[in-house]
This record gives sequence, C-alpha cells and structure tokens, in this order.
Amino acid sequence: MEKTFGEILERVRSKRPLVHHITNIVVANDNANCMLAVGALPVMAYAREEVEEMVAQAQALVINLGTLTGEVVESAILAARKANEVGIPVILDPVGAGATSFRTQSALQVLETAKVSVLRGNRAEIASLLGMRALVRGVESGEVEESPCAIVEKASLRFGTVVAITGEVDWVSDGKRVIRVFNGHPLLTKVTGTGCMATSLCGAFCGVEKDFLMATAAALSFLGVCAEKAAPFSLGPASFRNHLFDMMYKVDGDTFARMARFEVESL
Amino acid sequence: MEKTFGEILERVRSKRPLVHHITNIVVANDNANCMLAVGALPVMAYAREEVEEMVAQAQALVINLGTLTGEVVESAILAARKANEVGIPVILDPVGAGATSFRTQSALQVLETAKVSVLRGNRAEIASLLGMRALVRGVESGEVEESPCAIVEKASLRFGTVVAITGEVDWVSDGKRVIRVFNGHPLLTKVTGTGCMATSLCGAFCGVEKDFLMATAAALSFLGVCAEKAAPFSLGPASFRNHLFDMMYKVDGDTFARMARFEVESL
Amino acid sequence: MEKTFGEILERVRSKRPLVHHITNIVVANDNANCMLAVGALPVMAYAREEVEEMVAQAQALVINLGTLTGEVVESAILAARKANEVGIPVILDPVGAGATSFRTQSALQVLETAKVSVLRGNRAEIASLLGMRALVRGVESGEVEESPCAIVEKASLRFGTVVAITGEVDWVSDGKRVIRVFNGHPLLTKVTGTGCMATSLCGAFCGVEKDFLMATAAALSFLGVCAEKAAPFSLGPASFRNHLFDMMYKVDGDTFARMARFEVESL
Repeated sequence: MEKTFGEILERVRSKRPLVHHITNIVVANDNANCMLAVGALPVMAYAREEVEEMVAQAQALVINLGTLTGEVVESAILAARKANEVGIPVILDPVGAGATSFRTQSALQVLETAKVSVLRGNRAEIASLLGMRALVRGVESGEVEESPCAIVEKASLRFGTVVAITGEVDWVSDGKRVIRVFNGHPLLTKVTGTGCMATSLCGAFCGVEKDFLMATAAALSFLGVCAEKAAPFSLGPASFRNHLFDMMYKVDGDTFARMARFEVESL
Repeated sequence: MEKTFGEILERVRSKRPLVHHITNIVVANDNANCMLAVGALPVMAYAREEVEEMVAQAQALVINLGTLTGEVVESAILAARKANEVGIPVILDPVGAGATSFRTQSALQVLETAKVSVLRGNRAEIASLLGMRALVRGVESGEVEESPCAIVEKASLRFGTVVAITGEVDWVSDGKRVIRVFNGHPLLTKVTGTGCMATSLCGAFCGVEKDFLMATAAALSFLGVCAEKAAPFSLGPASFRNHLFDMMYKVDGDTFARMARFEVESL
Repeated sequence: MEKTFGEILERVRSKRPLVHHITNIVVANDNANCMLAVGALPVMAYAREEVEEMVAQAQALVINLGTLTGEVVESAILAARKANEVGIPVILDPVGAGATSFRTQSALQVLETAKVSVLRGNRAEIASLLGMRALVRGVESGEVEESPCAIVEKASLRFGTVVAITGEVDWVSDGKRVIRVFNGHPLLTKVTGTGCMATSLCGAFCGVEKDFLMATAAALSFLGVCAEKAAPFSLGPASFRNHLFDMMYKVDGDTFARMARFEVESL
C-alpha cells in the first residue's frame, strides 16, 4: 500500500496533470506553487466566460470557497458540471462552511448540482454540511459533538463522495472503508492555507489515480510527510512554509512510501 | 508601560482574537500569516451576503482599501456598521488615499457612515483625508507640508478615532495624548504590505485591549521590534520577510517589553 | 551594450518609476515585491472608477490577464488608453492566450483598442494571438510549429509593438532587430509567476528607458542573472524564490553588466 502511495506521487511527476483551480485570493499563489513543486500544472481561472473551456483541458478541478462571491459560486457550478461531462474529478473545499449560512449553502449547492469526487474540510466544516452542531471560529474548527469517523462516514453516504477531514489525524472515507492518516506536524496550523494546499494536492493525485479514496489519502499523507521533513529545519512558520514547498519538490516516491503512516479499515 | 505592551501581546496569544479582514488581493496571504504568527485567528470574507454574519463572530474588523472596488466598499460599510452594533473595534487602512479621488472618497465614506476605532495610514494618506496638500506616489507617501504630530492630532479630532501615522517614527494619537513609537527598520519599506500588516496587528491587539491608543501603539511597536530582530539575519527583502514572520511567532511578552521604545505625551 | 543594461538598472534605482499594475490574484504580491526589490514603486489598482487617475501618475502600465474577468478587461482598456494619452509605455502579458477564446480575444481587444509598447508571453501565447496552431496546457506553452524567431518577428509587425517570448532562450524583437537573451535557470519554471515578474520588470525598465527593445531585453536578462545567482543557494523552489527576490535587491549595475548574456541581430 505504501508502495502505491509512492507510485501515485511518481505518476503526478511523470504525467503532470493540469489542475484547474477556482480558488480564493488568500491562497491562490500558494496553491499554484504547491502544484508546481509536486510536479503538477496549475491553472487559475474563474470568469464564467471561460471556466468550461478551461476545465475541458484539465485532469482535475479544484473548487475552493475561501473568499467566495456569488459570481465565484456561479462559475464553480458551471465548471463542476463541465468536469462531470468530460469525466474528470471535482475536489471541493468548503472553507468556512458553518461560519456563515452563505458559505454552508454555497457548498451544499455545489454538492447538489454536480457530482463531487472528493470533499475535504476540517471537522466543523463537514459536520456543518450535515446539519450537525459545530463550533466554527471563522475558518477554524471548534468543538464538534460527533467523532470524525462518524462524520466522514455519514458525509460520504449523504453526498456520495469521498470525504476527508483533516486535523491532527486525517480521516478519509468512501462510505465503505475509512483510512486514517497519521502524518503531519503542528506547524501546519501556523501557516495559512495548508488546508487549501491539501485540497490542491488531492486534485493533483486524483488527476492521475481513479481510486479517489487512495489518491486522497496519499495526497494528505504526502503533505504530512513533507511537513515532518520540513519542521526540523524551521525557525518559525515562514521558514517552515519555505521548507514545506522545497520538500514537496524533493521528496521522492521511495521516501514517501517509507514515511507514509496510515491504516485502512472497512466500515 | 512597556510591561503593558508585553501583556497585550500575551493576551493576543491566549485569547486568539478572530480578526475579520476585508482586505486586498496583494496582501491577503501576508495578512493571514501575520495573524497566525502572532497568535490571532484571521478570516477573510468580503461578499455582501455574509460579511455581517461573519463580523458578528469576530473580535475585530480590519478594512483595507488597497485594491478596492465599489462592491468591496459596500461590503466594508455593511461590515463596519455591524461591528459597531456588536461592539467590536473597526480598524481602517485607507491605502492610497490621496492618489485617486475614488480612494479618498471611499475612505471618507467609511469614516462617515460607521464609527472607526483606529485609522492607520502613512503621512500623505491621512493628510489627504483631512484635505491637506500631500504628494502621493501610488501608495507611497511623498512630501507633506504639515508635521505628523499636527496631522494625527487633527485627524483624531476630526474623525473621532485613534489615528496612527507610520513611518520612520510612528505617531499615534487619540486627540488627547500622542505616542511616538521608535521601533522599526528600513527593510520594512522594501517588502510590500508591511503597512497592511501593521493594520492587521492593530486589529489583533485592539481585539483584546479596549484602550485603543495603547493597543495601537503596542501593535506598531511589536512590528518594529520583530523587524529589528529579523534584519540582522536577512540577506535582502525576501529573507527579511521570512524572518519577520518567524519573529512575530517567536518574540514573547518579556522580549517585547524589553525592546519596545516609545514616548507618551499629553497634547 | 552590456554597460547600457547596467545603466538602465541603475536608472530604475535612482528614478524609482511608479508602475501601475492591473494584475491577477495569483501573483499580485510577487509583482509588488519584485518592483520594490529592484527599486521601482508598485501600485495595484483595477477599479474602473480610478484606473485612469492612477495611471496618469505612473511611469508605466502593466496589464496582466492571468485571472481576467470582464470587469478587469474593461478597466485594462480604460487604463491603456489613458496611458497612451499621457505617453507612458503599456506592457501586456496575455497569460493563457490560446487556452480559452476569452483569453485570446481579451488580449487581442487590448492590442486593437490601445497602443501596446511591449507584449510579453510564452511561445504558445504569442503564437495563439497570431492565429497560429499552438498547444497550450493551462498557462504553459506546449508544442508550437513556428520558431520563436519567426513568431516574435511576425507579432511585432502585426501588432506594431516590441514582442518578447520567454523560455530557455528569450527572444525580443521590434520587427527590425531581434535580441536573444541567454540568462536564466530551470528553477524559474518551478515557481509560479516568474513570467509575470518578467513582465513587471519590463514595466520598470521601460519606465526609465525609451528604447523599449533594449529595456525589455535588459529586464529579461536581469531576471535571468538574478536566477543564476540565486540557484546555487537554493534547496528547492521556495528557497529559490526567496533568493531570487534578494538578488533583485542586491545585484548592482556592474554585476548585471558583467553577467548579461545576449546577442543583437538585424532581421
């Protein structure tokens, strides 16, 4: 299995999937650099005049609602439907779902009007989409009653998609199996957009691997492994971020396979 | 007094104020990372559909007009009024006021339709809002006839708010007292958005300290102290920026109190 | 000639041209930091209410269509016409031309409704504007039938502007002469927005030198020289990017003149 993770990474590097992003103004630059570092090709385009034409050339579509507007949501839905038509995966990051009803409703609207392949968020965001009570502070997860395991299982059944909750441990499920990913480092919470980078990586990995459950787990594990390798060289969050990007560029399939830590279980 | 500065910083770290930003596309990422580094929580949201709901959860609202549009100004005013209603501080950064009448008028519109707690800009920006003659080159201050001291005093009386002018020396006034802050480093002028970071820090500090004059002076002093500590390790503006963020994460209350340099006077 | 390159750089540092950017959400921060590092002054403004007033104060206008919308294109055209009126150079970066017809048509619209001084893109982007067949993957150039030399020559004649194609070798032409610039490093392709930085540098250099062919070649050579100096210190793309910015700040006219590698030929 670890070997599979390494193989997916190598496939990203050799196939260079084009990942179309409809993303936010905070992390657009980080998302793009993350894609180039891992070996994928980013393209950012959100005008309604062009999203369908652009997505038709891509191997994956990443929708990130971090600084959404009505226009962005409209373009996201156009792009997601086109992605469904041409048969490429749609990755949705419902940033701040639960914080405002506009965010919750917009994410649900995407989930209802298009087929989403992977839904990635923090525990409170995914719980909010299920209508569960969850404390959200801006875009940060607070207290949530239900366990991550229960949430990913329910959400994957409800939305018919792979669901990933990232946190100290990452939980990924397709409703039948659940994978826990143990890689990561606390400094990831001190840099903005690391959740968004995780979502972008899911796009790159799902762009070359049709088993979206494994591809998603591999993407999250990869970010965690890079964080583990970056942390010892870091004096603080900015130097950590730099080393994190450098590691995304340098960590090869073998190193990744050796360091990946996860467990797969049937539900 | 220096001890107070250190205490405000420690309070930011323990209370983790949520700082709602309506900010520009140039510095959105820096603003967010600045907040995480100092220990606050950033959230960026500017859609009119959600700004009021988001600001109601926050401890401070930062409005930065760096790449304003009509829609952004509209959202900023909605958010500022809601912030007034729920009783949290509003920090306004009138980026480029004086450079175009759209910028000057938009900043004045915010000041007239909502209660602003802190107005932070460079000398030419604040002078322009008072209708004084000031040379502005884009977003950089040029020659201004009146002294910073006269400008902060007049502006604080005119707009009924704490006013801060940042530059080689920072001037902060509430119309009764004036604080000069001496911390800083010339490399701050070689990195984009350090003024915007100063404004964000004012948001975080005012989010935990109701004496906005002291909170603002502390925020500016903190940025200056971090710059002083970052500069010796820096080879140029990019490495300086990285060390600056790392220092925002590392400088503790005691170090800050020891290094803060400022003078308080009555007007 | 090399001496001229160094002199143009020194003029940027002493005159500090104000470069008005209408740019994209991915690279806005990098564009601004690039300008400050080399010694120019950036200003980002794209609201239709203010672009004409802002451009009237600038020494150059940079239009970058990386994340264009209908509104951005409208503002870009207003700004470009005003730039023509006040006699400052307009630099156009048709990011992703050829990838979608919206991008191709928007770039052509700018070229047709205003006088553009410098058009900079990759081989596929410029070929697409000429209606040639070109493979584009998002914003990355793929296979193109015609040679870079033929493309820059044709494009400069068709559009009546200096045209630059950047790649392993950069080609710059005004229809009479062609300059090949050999400076650069492969890591430039692993960081997002280095093409956009090249365009910004063209703005700064053309803001102080009326021979736009030489100014453009000098700007591209400067980026390449900085990349060559940055690469040996870099562990990966993020550390490379930091060193690249630091070098833009540190490389002086003499070093630049000594390291610049290029050839001028008549067509």
